[in-house]
Amino acid sequence: MITRMSSLFLRTLREDPADAEVPSHKLLVRAGYVRRVAPGGYSWLPLGLRVLRNIERIVREEMESFGAQEIQFPALLPREPYETSNRWTEYGDTLFRVKDRKGADFLLGPTHEELFTLTVKGEYGSYKDFPVTLYQIQTKYRDEERPRAGILRTREFLMKDSYSFDVDDEGLANSYQQHRDAYIRIFDRLGLRYVIVSAVSGAMGGSASEEFLAESETGEDTFVRCLESGFAANVEAITTPAPAARPFDDVPAASVHHTPNTPTIATLVDHLNAADLGRAFTAADTLKNVMVKTRAPGAEEWELLGVGVPGDREVDFKRLEASLYPTEVALLEESDFQRNPFMVKGYIGPGALIANGVRYLVDPRVVTGTSWVTGADKADHHVVDLVCGRDFTPDGTIEAAEVRVGDPSPDGAGELVAARGIEIGHIFQLGRKFADAFGLDALGPDGKPVRITMGSYGVGVSRLVAAVAEQSHDDRGLIWPRAIAPADVQLVIAGKDDAMRAAAERLAAELDAEGVRVILDDRKASPGVKFADAELIGVPTILVVGRGLAQGVVEVKDRRSGERADVALDSVVSRIVEITRS
Amino acid sequence: MITRMSSLFLRTLREDPADAEVPSHKLLVRAGYVRRVAPGGYSWLPLGLRVLRNIERIVREEMESFGAQEIQFPALLPREPYETSNRWTEYGDTLFRVKDRKGADFLLGPTHEELFTLTVKGEYGSYKDFPVTLYQIQTKYRDEERPRAGILRTREFLMKDSYSFDVDDEGLANSYQQHRDAYIRIFDRLGLRYVIVSAVSGAMGGSASEEFLAESETGEDTFVRCLESGFAANVEAITTPAPAARPFDDVPAASVHHTPNTPTIATLVDHLNAADLGRAFTAADTLKNVMVKTRAPGAEEWELLGVGVPGDREVDFKRLEASLYPTEVALLEESDFQRNPFMVKGYIGPGALIANGVRYLVDPRVVTGTSWVTGADKADHHVVDLVCGRDFTPDGTIEAAEVRVGDPSPDGAGELVAARGIEIGHIFQLGRKFADAFGLDALGPDGKPVRITMGSYGVGVSRLVAAVAEQSHDDRGLIWPRAIAPADVQLVIAGKDDAMRAAAERLAAELDAEGVRVILDDRKASPGVKFADAELIGVPTILVVGRGLAQGVVEVKDRRSGERADVALDSVVSRIVEITRS
Repeated sequence: MITRMSSLFLRTLREDPADAEVPSHKLLVRAGYVRRVAPGGYSWLPLGLRVLRNIERIVREEMESFGAQEIQFPALLPREPYETSNRWTEYGDTLFRVKDRKGADFLLGPTHEELFTLTVKGEYGSYKDFPVTLYQIQTKYRDEERPRAGILRTREFLMKDSYSFDVDDEGLANSYQQHRDAYIRIFDRLGLRYVIVSAVSGAMGGSASEEFLAESETGEDTFVRCLESGFAANVEAITTPAPAARPFDDVPAASVHHTPNTPTIATLVDHLNAADLGRAFTAADTLKNVMVKTRAPGAEEWELLGVGVPGDREVDFKRLEASLYPTEVALLEESDFQRNPFMVKGYIGPGALIANGVRYLVDPRVVTGTSWVTGADKADHHVVDLVCGRDFTPDGTIEAAEVRVGDPSPDGAGELVAARGIEIGHIFQLGRKFADAFGLDALGPDGKPVRITMGSYGVGVSRLVAAVAEQSHDDRGLIWPRAIAPADVQLVIAGKDDAMRAAAERLAAELDAEGVRVILDDRKASPGVKFADAELIGVPTILVVGRGLAQGVVEVKDRRSGERADVALDSVVSRIVEITRS
Repeated sequence: MITRMSSLFLRTLREDPADAEVPSHKLLVRAGYVRRVAPGGYSWLPLGLRVLRNIERIVREEMESFGAQEIQFPALLPREPYETSNRWTEYGDTLFRVKDRKGADFLLGPTHEELFTLTVKGEYGSYKDFPVTLYQIQTKYRDEERPRAGILRTREFLMKDSYSFDVDDEGLANSYQQHRDAYIRIFDRLGLRYVIVSAVSGAMGGSASEEFLAESETGEDTFVRCLESGFAANVEAITTPAPAARPFDDVPAASVHHTPNTPTIATLVDHLNAADLGRAFTAADTLKNVMVKTRAPGAEEWELLGVGVPGDREVDFKRLEASLYPTEVALLEESDFQRNPFMVKGYIGPGALIANGVRYLVDPRVVTGTSWVTGADKADHHVVDLVCGRDFTPDGTIEAAEVRVGDPSPDGAGELVAARGIEIGHIFQLGRKFADAFGLDALGPDGKPVRITMGSYGVGVSRLVAAVAEQSHDDRGLIWPRAIAPADVQLVIAGKDDAMRAAAERLAAELDAEGVRVILDDRKASPGVKFADAELIGVPTILVVGRGLAQGVVEVKDRRSGERADVALDSVVSRIVEITRS
């Protein structure tokens, strides 16, 4: 394929677009790959579409390689299945809702679990039909509150989503592993640097959910990693090593102190240290009790929950949610306090909670024998030397405290450091949630129905274009891995000489005959303009037919390394073929 | 590629779906190609998606062959550009409108003229940049009042839309011709029987708009054709041959008659024939004056228009609209009659219209010297022997009367017959409508702006799957042309014999190595079930490994002709390769 710059629908820009902050956004716009059409809506111009299609092809190849079968659903979907799964409501403002001319409710699919489940239910009925894995590469819609960074987070995007259907947990584990392996092959072929992070805590089943994050300073997703062991996880998946229980024989009896105007940990610590109790206190000595309410799936009523964490740490609401999932969690309202006057705001302690039958969970660091300053359940009063296992017994532990840089890695290999990444893939053992909602069963060998278990797997196909661009560029432009580059070679005619033009045309034809994809810069522009555009566009090999032609050589330049070499005209085709096939 | 029926996500149905009326709908559902998800919304199962992708590939190849460049817009589009073009309103209920979380208006693109125009304006500015043709293969949304016939008319469908941009009319004519040629190649490659019909009358520029209609009894589009000459056109494009003017010296003077209770043509004719006027009247002797109102583009006010047609023909509103386009036309309301009391309902004649300055256009058959019975502008009165050119002079002619089977072909070669078709393509010289709306200019060689002229071209990609199925099936199932078939060969293992299975597996591998796409029916089902499924699925060649294997032969069957031949096992691969490449 020969693409001529003289007719290619392309205008490169010398300046960064005003609304662009991250490198991929700046460069993809400047190099004419994408254009903004609306908030979070982009059009793909010819070069961008080529990269997108190349990624799509790689994703498709790796999905087919393990027997996944491609289908395609509409994007405009009826409300009913999403009502059944409760996601019509759960998605909230993120869902684009549409009414048709008759007033019937539709939505633009943000993801398609419901449809896949219903479709498998419609077609399959026997255990012999399973396992099956179906996928689609399709446009998804999410009304993001803050679309950002060009095509990194848009409201309309291309996604590969797939779903596995198995009759048992072992089958699901196998389907999950197949996807995991395929994702590794996909992201390796794209030349990405990425980590696979556990997305939920070990308590929920270890590898039941993992995210693939492309390492990038501009990524929205934070994760923590241990440089010593390579361990990486979302903070939601971090488990806190519990210290050993301590003897508490020497700890004085708990004592209540008048601590006026100390509603915060900082004011409390200052007050205690000023009170001359014979020792120094820090925030880590205090036990902060945060009240929330929870509601189990299917339950009508909300129940109170007290969460006790060391006072030097905040409760990380996302970690709390992940720990309680699928139970819902919400902050208390003023009316909750009014209905439960035993909760004295700012001075809540384990005592009143336990006495009033409120479930009380604590951070794993709160082990037997640890001694705490905490609320005395009375305004302006705190209790000192309240010992876990002696003075109070919590209902259990919970991963809810924030994770900090410097915390020990759960694998004990070292300390955690913070990092950022772009979510490019997600694999998830969904289990029977949707099969339960839609009654997806298979008749087992004994004639009895077996509930199907599902996995859900996604790759952000259009986002990958940006993720690769984030990792692979320099200050002159994009640098594409050959596997997804819009062409193999940018052939620059660096002069007005007829001989140069003729030689370049001949070279382009010969390369094309060898299956090499060529962009031929045949424009009437200066060599400087052409070189700058070639660097900006980022095709992996730049071939220059210029002054050297008189000496029978052309220049071959590697876009990534910047290495240049003069190659004899009569051997350059075989040299390029060698490069492109290596 | 080997696809195993044992794992293919497919369930065929023996019964027609209850909601299906046309063959393509019945068979595509029965053979497991598509499934209904919502009104006018279908999912593509693996075999269906293959056919769709094959068609997409052919369309893409033929578009690229003449230099069209592929881009891709979002489907979710902002309101503003469609407000500028006035189509936000014009589309009416056909447009799916969406509000985002901030209340901003969006729409699901029914077609993309606005975005293409704006994009070209954003990138290009010099006459040297033109011509350029851009296209996309994209999901479109139209809230059809009556989705029907499976995937023939859906609310979400795949379309190739392209737009040409030229600096002058000659360039547009050339771009139009390139599309026309490419469409012919596309539809020929799909093996379709189709006609190219003029979509608008010659008065608007002859070939400025043509539709490609796949011949089909189940098609929604009617057209007329002349079997003698091959002429074919939409009725909107039919011009009525005008008879020669006649002498009218012998026609008696016009006379007004009392014709009580004759508001319709039929009652009028009966009354006249009963009145003993010395001759017999038919509906064709009467002149029916139909009142509408029109509004020119940009105009505020509606103006009255009288349309006179022979009383034996109805006014065809679509023909009237096409004749007046881009002027809008609407029926009168009661208030219009009240404001213009000179219009006496049921008795309107040319007299009052002309006297009151109302524009009055007549059917081309109403030539000088023709004599008519028509309204006398007075309740219960008609005038007889009103002669065109003597007693009234219309403002011109208009193509508004219905076209009938048996009417003369505009080319004079014979009579028109009626036919039905499925619109599969449309090419249209759009001109400067959108360039005017968005100010799309190029700087000419003299530095002065030149307004760009556009063409708009569409192929219904997903509809083509149904169009081919309509034309190519029998009572046993689908019959795909090889170019778009989901596989080349359906290889049926017709027995439980291990030797049969082994031979079939070997054959499948050998065919695959030759690039032949094989569906291997390796299921534990009866030969009868397998044969029935093979016929239903409609792969062009059916290969049966059965009892003949003992004699060293397998059966090769052509799905379309039904011809069977026993072929020696050791030569069957080369025979199949020969068939697939022919």
